[in-house]
Amino acid sequence: MKSSAWLDQIGGRLADQMRFLLEADRLKGVIRLNHIADGSRRENTAEHSWHLALFAMVLSEYAIEPVDIWRVVQMLILHDLVEIEAGDTPLHLTLTDTGQAEREQAAADILFGMLPSEQGQAFRAMWDEFETAESADARFAKACDRLQPILLNHVVGGGTWNVRPDFNIEMEKSLTQRIALGSPTLWAAAETVFADAVANGWLKPAPTPAA
Amino acid sequence: MKSSAWLDQIGGRLADQMRFLLEADRLKGVIRLNHIADGSRRENTAEHSWHLALFAMVLSEYAIEPVDIWRVVQMLILHDLVEIEAGDTPLHLTLTDTGQAEREQAAADILFGMLPSEQGQAFRAMWDEFETAESADARFAKACDRLQPILLNHVVGGGTWNVRPDFNIEMEKSLTQRIALGSPTLWAAAETVFADAVANGWLKPAPTPAA
Repeated sequence: MKSSAWLDQIGGRLADQMRFLLEADRLKGVIRLNHIADGSRRENTAEHSWHLALFAMVLSEYAIEPVDIWRVVQMLILHDLVEIEAGDTPLHLTLTDTGQAEREQAAADILFGMLPSEQGQAFRAMWDEFETAESADARFAKACDRLQPILLNHVVGGGTWNVRPDFNIEMEKSLTQRIALGSPTLWAAAETVFADAVANGWLKPAPTPAA
Repeated sequence: MKSSAWLDQIGGRLADQMRFLLEADRLKGVIRLNHIADGSRRENTAEHSWHLALFAMVLSEYAIEPVDIWRVVQMLILHDLVEIEAGDTPLHLTLTDTGQAEREQAAADILFGMLPSEQGQAFRAMWDEFETAESADARFAKACDRLQPILLNHVVGGGTWNVRPDFNIEMEKSLTQRIALGSPTLWAAAETVFADAVANGWLKPAPTPAA
């Protein structure tokens, strides 16, 4: 920041909130593994979060349980902010826990701690709820988060399905099947996308069992 | 799209909704005049829309009238989708109406017309409400839309305040003073930012009247 004199003049809650909003801008520079739909470049996490909010707004009718779509959208707007501090850990590269959860908890402490305390606590509670995915709202938010990259991988003809040579449809299903917990209808659609991707050679089929 | 066989298989409402969501992805490729906070590149409209949703969530307490913040956020997620078809018309380059309003109405017909009719009509009504800005919710949404680029211009030391050689603080205030209709508190903060920008030489002062 080239000058913070203005923030000192504003002071109080509002200055803390503006500092948080400027810090949040860094999410535009966190680059994900998948590409945007025209294939021209990789997606950043800020535009990904916008797209997920739109997914939730458009697809809420398919939630398996009644959801409060405003709570779902708040989770999706907030859910990846911790990547500013902790970075993105791509689903398709890791497959195992690598300490990311601890890094994200520490990042949440820092980021949400920038806000006035009752507001920071409310945002943090929303983020925790998304992470633990034990509510209907969080399960549907997670379903949107898993579904969107599937459509993007398909539209670019492979995408993150090709970053590991051994990656196949069974591994993809194991990474994304939690969509069914939020919406069996959207999971059925995802399975249709997978089958079409296999038919087109963009996603490897299940390995043939040894004879 | 490399293959649409899967969309034919899914069919019905859900296929239309997925087509819309993939079309919406193009908003990530609509480039605005202003830069992101680290100055590294210009902002795209999708990530801008995410940032505005976060602004509204964080700053809703400053709305001059009671607002339904969920409606405000929906407007902000949807408000710039028409730029996919109509392009972005930068506030700081135009200063006058150049037929953009008509282009955006036509774009709204196309885009929201991709959705199942009752859903498309609901989204279109939300977009119309933002455009006409005659409700408290829309006035606060507009205030967020005007405030965010001010903070980004300041943090990069000028930004779109420098795209026209004759541009000065009085012109900037005339473009952004509608912030006060949504929140006098946020307008006062914007005036503090402007004064600091003038003091730092990033925004020209008001012209001296001829003697």
